Amino acid sequence: DERIPMEAAKRDAVAKEMQATVAELLELYHDAKQSHWNLRGPLYYQLHEVLQEYAETYLKYTDIMAERALQVGRPIDGRTGVIAATADLGGYPGGFLEDRQVLDLMSSRVDIVAKRVRERIERVGKIDETTSNLLQELSHDLDKQAWQLRVTQQ
Amino acid sequence: DERIPMEAAKRDAVAKEMQATVAELLELYHDAKQSHWNLRGPLYYQLHEVLQEYAETYLKYTDIMAERALQVGRPIDGRTGVIAATADLGGYPGGFLEDRQVLDLMSSRVDIVAKRVRERIERVGKIDETTSNLLQELSHDLDKQAWQLRVTQQ
Amino acid sequence: DERIPMEAAKRDAVAKEMQATVAELLELYHDAKQSHWNLRGPLYYQLHEVLQEYAETYLKYTDIMAERALQVGRPIDGRTGVIAATADLGGYPGGFLEDRQVLDLMSSRVDIVAKRVRERIERVGKIDETTSNLLQELSHDLDKQAWQLRVTQQ
Amino acid sequence: DERIPMEAAKRDAVAKEMQATVAELLELYHDAKQSHWNLRGPLYYQLHEVLQEYAETYLKYTDIMAERALQVGRPIDGRTGVIAATADLGGYPGGFLEDRQVLDLMSSRVDIVAKRVRERIERVGKIDETTSNLLQELSHDLDKQAWQLRVTQQ
Amino acid sequence: DERIPMEAAKRDAVAKEMQATVAELLELYHDAKQSHWNLRGPLYYQLHEVLQEYAETYLKYTDIMAERALQVGRPIDGRTGVIAATADLGGYPGGFLEDRQVLDLMSSRVDIVAKRVRERIERVGKIDETTSNLLQELSHDLDKQAWQLRVTQQ
Amino acid sequence: DERIPMEAAKRDAVAKEMQATVAELLELYHDAKQSHWNLRGPLYYQLHEVLQEYAETYLKYTDIMAERALQVGRPIDGRTGVIAATADLGGYPGGFLEDRQVLDLMSSRVDIVAKRVRERIERVGKIDETTSNLLQELSHDLDKQAWQLRVTQQ
Amino acid sequence: DERIPMEAAKRDAVAKEMQATVAELLELYHDAKQSHWNLRGPLYYQLHEVLQEYAETYLKYTDIMAERALQVGRPIDGRTGVIAATADLGGYPGGFLEDRQVLDLMSSRVDIVAKRVRERIERVGKIDETTSNLLQELSHDLDKQAWQLRVTQQ
Amino acid sequence: DERIPMEAAKRDAVAKEMQATVAELLELYHDAKQSHWNLRGPLYYQLHEVLQEYAETYLKYTDIMAERALQVGRPIDGRTGVIAATADLGGYPGGFLEDRQVLDLMSSRVDIVAKRVRERIERVGKIDETTSNLLQELSHDLDKQAWQLRVTQQ
Amino acid sequence: DERIPMEAAKRDAVAKEMQATVAELLELYHDAKQSHWNLRGPLYYQLHEVLQEYAETYLKYTDIMAERALQVGRPIDGRTGVIAATADLGGYPGGFLEDRQVLDLMSSRVDIVAKRVRERIERVGKIDETTSNLLQELSHDLDKQAWQLRVTQQ
Amino acid sequence: DERIPMEAAKRDAVAKEMQATVAELLELYHDAKQSHWNLRGPLYYQLHEVLQEYAETYLKYTDIMAERALQVGRPIDGRTGVIAATADLGGYPGGFLEDRQVLDLMSSRVDIVAKRVRERIERVGKIDETTSNLLQELSHDLDKQAWQLRVTQQ
Amino acid sequence: DERIPMEAAKRDAVAKEMQATVAELLELYHDAKQSHWNLRGPLYYQLHEVLQEYAETYLKYTDIMAERALQVGRPIDGRTGVIAATADLGGYPGGFLEDRQVLDLMSSRVDIVAKRVRERIERVGKIDETTSNLLQELSHDLDKQAWQLRVTQQ
Amino acid sequence: DERIPMEAAKRDAVAKEMQATVAELLELYHDAKQSHWNLRGPLYYQLHEVLQEYAETYLKYTDIMAERALQVGRPIDGRTGVIAATADLGGYPGGFLEDRQVLDLMSSRVDIVAKRVRERIERVGKIDETTSNLLQELSHDLDKQAWQLRVTQQ
Ligand SMILES: [Fe+3]
Ligand SMILES: [Fe+3]
Ligand SMILES: [Fe+3]
Ligand SMILES: [Fe+3]
Ligand SMILES: [Fe+3]
Ligand SMILES: [Fe+3]
Ligand SMILES: [Fe+3]
Ligand SMILES: [Fe+3]
Ligand SMILES: [Fe+3]
Ligand SMILES: [Fe+3]
Ligand SMILES: [Fe+3]
Ligand SMILES: [Fe+3]
Ligand SMILES: [Mg+2]
Ligand SMILES: [Mg+2]
Ligand SMILES: [Mg+2]
Ligand SMILES: [Mg+2]
Ligand SMILES: [Mg+2]
Ligand SMILES: [Mg+2]
Ligand SMILES: [Mg+2]
Ligand SMILES: [Mg+2]
Ligand SMILES: [Mg+2]
Ligand SMILES: [Mg+2]
Ligand SMILES: [Mg+2]
Ligand SMILES: [Mg+2]
Repeated sequence: DERIPMEAAKRDAVAKEMQATVAELLELYHDAKQSHWNLRGPLYYQLHEVLQEYAETYLKYTDIMAERALQVGRPIDGRTGVIAATADLGGYPGGFLEDRQVLDLMSSRVDIVAKRVRERIERVGKIDETTSNLLQELSHDLDKQAWQLRVTQQ
Repeated sequence: DERIPMEAAKRDAVAKEMQATVAELLELYHDAKQSHWNLRGPLYYQLHEVLQEYAETYLKYTDIMAERALQVGRPIDGRTGVIAATADLGGYPGGFLEDRQVLDLMSSRVDIVAKRVRERIERVGKIDETTSNLLQELSHDLDKQAWQLRVTQQ
Repeated sequence: DERIPMEAAKRDAVAKEMQATVAELLELYHDAKQSHWNLRGPLYYQLHEVLQEYAETYLKYTDIMAERALQVGRPIDGRTGVIAATADLGGYPGGFLEDRQVLDLMSSRVDIVAKRVRERIERVGKIDETTSNLLQELSHDLDKQAWQLRVTQQ
Repeated sequence: DERIPMEAAKRDAVAKEMQATVAELLELYHDAKQSHWNLRGPLYYQLHEVLQEYAETYLKYTDIMAERALQVGRPIDGRTGVIAATADLGGYPGGFLEDRQVLDLMSSRVDIVAKRVRERIERVGKIDETTSNLLQELSHDLDKQAWQLRVTQQ
Repeated sequence: DERIPMEAAKRDAVAKEMQATVAELLELYHDAKQSHWNLRGPLYYQLHEVLQEYAETYLKYTDIMAERALQVGRPIDGRTGVIAATADLGGYPGGFLEDRQVLDLMSSRVDIVAKRVRERIERVGKIDETTSNLLQELSHDLDKQAWQLRVTQQ
Repeated sequence: DERIPMEAAKRDAVAKEMQATVAELLELYHDAKQSHWNLRGPLYYQLHEVLQEYAETYLKYTDIMAERALQVGRPIDGRTGVIAATADLGGYPGGFLEDRQVLDLMSSRVDIVAKRVRERIERVGKIDETTSNLLQELSHDLDKQAWQLRVTQQ
Repeated sequence: DERIPMEAAKRDAVAKEMQATVAELLELYHDAKQSHWNLRGPLYYQLHEVLQEYAETYLKYTDIMAERALQVGRPIDGRTGVIAATADLGGYPGGFLEDRQVLDLMSSRVDIVAKRVRERIERVGKIDETTSNLLQELSHDLDKQAWQLRVTQQ
Repeated sequence: DERIPMEAAKRDAVAKEMQATVAELLELYHDAKQSHWNLRGPLYYQLHEVLQEYAETYLKYTDIMAERALQVGRPIDGRTGVIAATADLGGYPGGFLEDRQVLDLMSSRVDIVAKRVRERIERVGKIDETTSNLLQELSHDLDKQAWQLRVTQQ
Repeated sequence: DERIPMEAAKRDAVAKEMQATVAELLELYHDAKQSHWNLRGPLYYQLHEVLQEYAETYLKYTDIMAERALQVGRPIDGRTGVIAATADLGGYPGGFLEDRQVLDLMSSRVDIVAKRVRERIERVGKIDETTSNLLQELSHDLDKQAWQLRVTQQ
Repeated sequence: DERIPMEAAKRDAVAKEMQATVAELLELYHDAKQSHWNLRGPLYYQLHEVLQEYAETYLKYTDIMAERALQVGRPIDGRTGVIAATADLGGYPGGFLEDRQVLDLMSSRVDIVAKRVRERIERVGKIDETTSNLLQELSHDLDKQAWQLRVTQQ
Repeated sequence: DERIPMEAAKRDAVAKEMQATVAELLELYHDAKQSHWNLRGPLYYQLHEVLQEYAETYLKYTDIMAERALQVGRPIDGRTGVIAATADLGGYPGGFLEDRQVLDLMSSRVDIVAKRVRERIERVGKIDETTSNLLQELSHDLDKQAWQLRVTQQ
Repeated sequence: DERIPMEAAKRDAVAKEMQATVAELLELYHDAKQSHWNLRGPLYYQLHEVLQEYAETYLKYTDIMAERALQVGRPIDGRTGVIAATADLGGYPGGFLEDRQVLDLMSSRVDIVAKRVRERIERVGKIDETTSNLLQELSHDLDKQAWQLRVTQQ
């Protein structure tokens, strides 16, 4: 453990934030695919495609945040049961989904995660600029999704 | 529903097999990423990369099988809680994982799913050749993974 | 003719199914382009693009099925007059087309062809697995289109 | 209709030329594929490939000319029955085709269309330079095909 | 100046048309981006993307037309103040924009420019065929945009 | 061996068919390259290229079939001596080869293998759909080659 | 507006900085193209190309900054009149431009904007790390341009 | 010769212009490469690259114009002796070349050809719009080169 | 020097950190290539490839950090003698290297540099956010390498 | 035969060396694929991939050497029986292969061929530099493989 | 001239061989294009394409050999008049060319140049291995063309 | 060591030449980057880019030559201290560099290395053609750089 560049005292705090972020992003991934599949309505074609792109964005950051935990010497937990129990975004409906309903559900959930990521940037920024920088890039992408989902409903 | 090409009497049976396959593939995806991240040992570099490729294969077939359920007029359920509760592959360990341990875990789980897919091909082949053909392609890819994981341990 | 791998007794039956499939797919190609061009309404941009993709799918399978007839030693007939006379999908309207109208027309016609292809898989599967396999791949793509066109109207 | 850039008095004339060109190009497309499939003889490999390329050229210009009609405010008609009835290139033989026969048939038909396109350039050039420019590019490609088919027979 | 291929007497007339075209195209670029950003409503995703593509088309032709002025020995003026003062397309609204409103605004402005370009083809065609040919290609792309914006509102 | 997804009783039968197919495909590879190199005559350029493409097709399926044997728990034998002794396609001539002679030789040998593959699909289809599916794809490509070689001689 | 991740109190301040940055970057875009076109002198070829690359960099960041304003719930204003009135970089000369003159003009203007961006990073860093991070990336690219323009004159 | 789309009376005139253009473009190609190789001076790197690009442009149009002669039923003559005897651009110096000297030589020769091409557009435009269109595209590229070579010397 | 965007008082401090980082990264580059070449042992293939990728990462950041010094108005020193004298990472062994030995050596040296970069982020963050941001990206990549080298030895 | 550039007296000697090289390279190809398929052990993943790359290298040079024989007017013999009888590398084991065993087998066989190629360079260099140059490139690639296989066992 | 790596005494001899090679390759380029254009007969399509590829090969080596002369401190002469006067390959016929005639003409001329290049390798090999190596690569490509043209006539 | 293809008696001599070449090439790499960074003057843009390309060429051959030493059974030494002590090219100036100064410095150093490589080709050619061939390719690239740097100063 001498060869972990980050100071020992900071590792648990950073790893904890990474674990929470990974759980939320994997939950969003399942949400986005759930919507990509069960979608109905006149906006089907464009939302089907957009949701796939959003889903890929979640996986990209999941990998970055999970590996950041390992870099600071801690394991990450991405198992389905753990995600289901800890993502804390509320239930997502089963069955078919109307396009308007998906816009409302996804914009609400992305907004929640985006806000939590902003709080993490605040906390992590005091400990580790490198991790904060990674969260800032995620924050930017989530804010973009939140904007796009929001204005489509206006 | 008149515009669903598959005969109405066959739809539930096909959709049920798709739901089970999607649950197992999503579980395997989480397993493969869990291993990709928490891996340790001399085989790290090659297994880290191989597990990422296997994970992408699981997602590719998840999308194909999930959308097949929709094509036959049924919704699919890929929510984390549902996957955790229904994949029925046994628990996957948390924390760090040794390379040999990952080979054993993944080869066992891939083998289980590959065998179930073979049974599904049998059952579905009597109902719908088109769906069976999709399962055969998945079967081939799972058999390849099972082989590679198996001989690396020999 | 000794160098045609398929047994002589099976060739006419297979070629006949190929001829019928080619006629329907070329008719669908013209329908999709007719719609791609004369389309109007708020869904214009997304349907204009989707119809082009569907049209390219029809041509891809037309070539595969037509060449399958040649492979079993029979000519194929893809002339405009023959297609117009034999595709048997009913007339397609001339002039401008509303987006909703196109969704209804195309989903109806794709559904008809998808159902006929399913019957062909049944018949051909008893004669030649290789040809059946090609029809299964077409069947999968048509079922996907039928699904997408159907749920956009819901 | 106020937002159609072309002057109202010119639209019918331009659209009429586009309709005739689209009909001929779609007929040539079917001819080229008919030959691509049913071809026989020592020149098979090279003509099979060349005919596919020519066919793709016909579709490229079909799309350009059809959409030009829409741009000037008129619908286009690309339905199989309409093409069969109006392309006015004479019948194309069914069944197998010898390579020499295909060279003769295709060079004759391409020559006819190339000559009609030249007359259209003359007529349209007096009405609309932009449309004439599109026809000139088609004319160049048809003249190239006519040359290649002609000298291969010499 | 002896090494300017165009005859001296024609240069001012050509350069003047290029200057006017550049001003209008740069104004359309700002309009398209203004709409790409401030857009709202159910058509958001597809219009956001389409407006970016249109904006890139304006810049492509801006460069061609501006460099044509230089080729005939005259400078071009693309400064923001000059564009704002001379594009002569009327004001574009600030603040958020509804999707329907953007379709109306953009189709009106593209229509105006497309009509002016048609007049320029007429005038320039009498002086310089090479420049006229460039304007014809622009005319074709503007007519395509005008068509697409128009039918989406029908 | 518990982690071989295919049922133990089926493995030998499948592996035996794979071994025979691999031997024939490797033999065809050597035949195609032998012809690619020693070819003479007016069709040289086109056949030289076509034979290279066919050769690559043989290698693609060799790898798929060989690895299928491994997947079912059996080794494969692709050694030159074994291929020479077991491919059972008759001798191939040494020295220079006329273009017409190559067409005759290759079309005869491809036809033989294509027919044997059809029999294997029959036998294997009763045991393992997944392997049969792989053979069907090979069958399709061999039938295409047989057709092209056949009609070039007509 | 509840679904805007950034806290309400911070939005105006961030949006104001984004508006100023967008105005300056669009002005620099017009400057760079103005120089790309009207350039003269022995350094023509290399500067013509470099100015095009710089211009594309300005547009890339314009889009990022403009959309950041939208993400925080505010519209952006990129209209030509607004840019001309607010960019506040002083006038840019019309007519032909000597290469040395362009180096001087552009290095001066890039330097001004780069300094303003540095001040914005200071101010924004206290409010929103995510926006500051975007400005830092812009700052790095502007500093690189300032360096290259500066040393070319030494 | 009945299958040459262009009217018989126009062919000689068009072919004559094509022959002259081909001779000049091939001469320019040799000039550009001669300069690309024997160049010296501070502008070496940028001119070496630019001259290669110009050379490739000459070959691209050579092929288009030469094949246009064939399309109208006439042979073309691109033999070195014929080019040397008929290009009529005056001698090009042997031995090493200074960068400034190359700019002067090439801008003079490009200017001469560009002017001749303009005259050909005039003459050919009265006979064949399709050929004129090809010459207009060449004219545009030559005018661009003339501009770039001219301003680099200013 | 007025046209250096960074405030004069900050330049020396930033340039000093850049110089130290460049020296360490170039030393790591030589270390990685030294290992890439002289490597032995069962892990040869995977480490040979990984070390090449790490080496390329060092060069990528060397260029970014070196040019950052220039951007703030200071020269950089990357000469071999200077690197050898100032990188301060201790000697690297000559001759053949065992795979385990390379893992130990490289993980130790990457860890040292990664820790120094973390200290630099601290110091530079107080002076210049833009430079700190660049160091944070380097820090992330070094931490990733340190993790991978570390767990391969566990 | 007058149009064979190589002097008649040299042809047999060169062709003989080409024939021997082709036989050895084709044998190595079969060896590498035999190992790629039947491999077992912890190094499976990396060797499976490396052996495929080596196999492709053998085929690349097989084609070059075989066509060199043709270029000097002699046929080549690449038939399986001939390769099995003349490659003279000793037998290769059937059945499963341990990773260590494959490293030993392949490094021995590559070493034998690499040494023979070195002798051929000596002999051929006295006759034909062009052929020798081709053998030198093969020699370099074989020496690289021999090195990599050798050090992996150390 | 002190900074020309080749010894002064060798330069003239090497440059002389380069000049002769450049003259022949440029002549072959014109021959190949002359044939590409004026070709007739059943082999048109394949020879038209092959001649274009050969022509590009001549230009590739022309550039390498011409720049080799410059590298040894001598200018090169690639002017049309010089090529026409010095290539010494005999006249090439004007007007239309039959496919068989082109095969005979080109194979004769390629053979002549290939033989001269072999003699140059002999002479240059005694002076400069680096230049000889370049000629050997050209020799290989010419021998390949000579072979292909030769066997197509057999 | 029995599995090193090169004869034992030749290995030391070849490895010694490789070591010297690697040292010089790595030194040139540092020189080129030193110049790429600290450059000033009107030729900045083009030299900045050219020096990067030259630097990449040095690294490409460094890898080839270093691995050649390993192939003949000897380690290579590329450590910074060793390069600084043994490259023997004289000191390279620190601090800012004028463009003319860089041309002089680099052309002198490339000339020195190019001459040494020529001597190595002489010596190595008597021992090992394969290594000599690699040095000839390096020699060609260095001679090209020497030429380009030389004529830019003329
Ligand atoms: Fe990862
Ligand atoms: Fe999907
Ligand atoms: Fe086809
Ligand atoms: Fe279209
Ligand atoms: Fe431009
Ligand atoms: Fe494989
Ligand atoms: Fe955008
Ligand atoms: Fe051509
Ligand atoms: Fe750089
Ligand atoms: Fe080959
Ligand atoms: Fe060159
Ligand atoms: Fe390497
Ligand atoms: Mg940051
Ligand atoms: Mg089946
Ligand atoms: Mg299948
Ligand atoms: Mg025109
Ligand atoms: Mg199947
Ligand atoms: Mg015109
Ligand atoms: Mg045009
Ligand atoms: Mg920060
Ligand atoms: Mg950042
Ligand atoms: Mg040699
Ligand atoms: Mg050599
Ligand atoms: Mg060589």
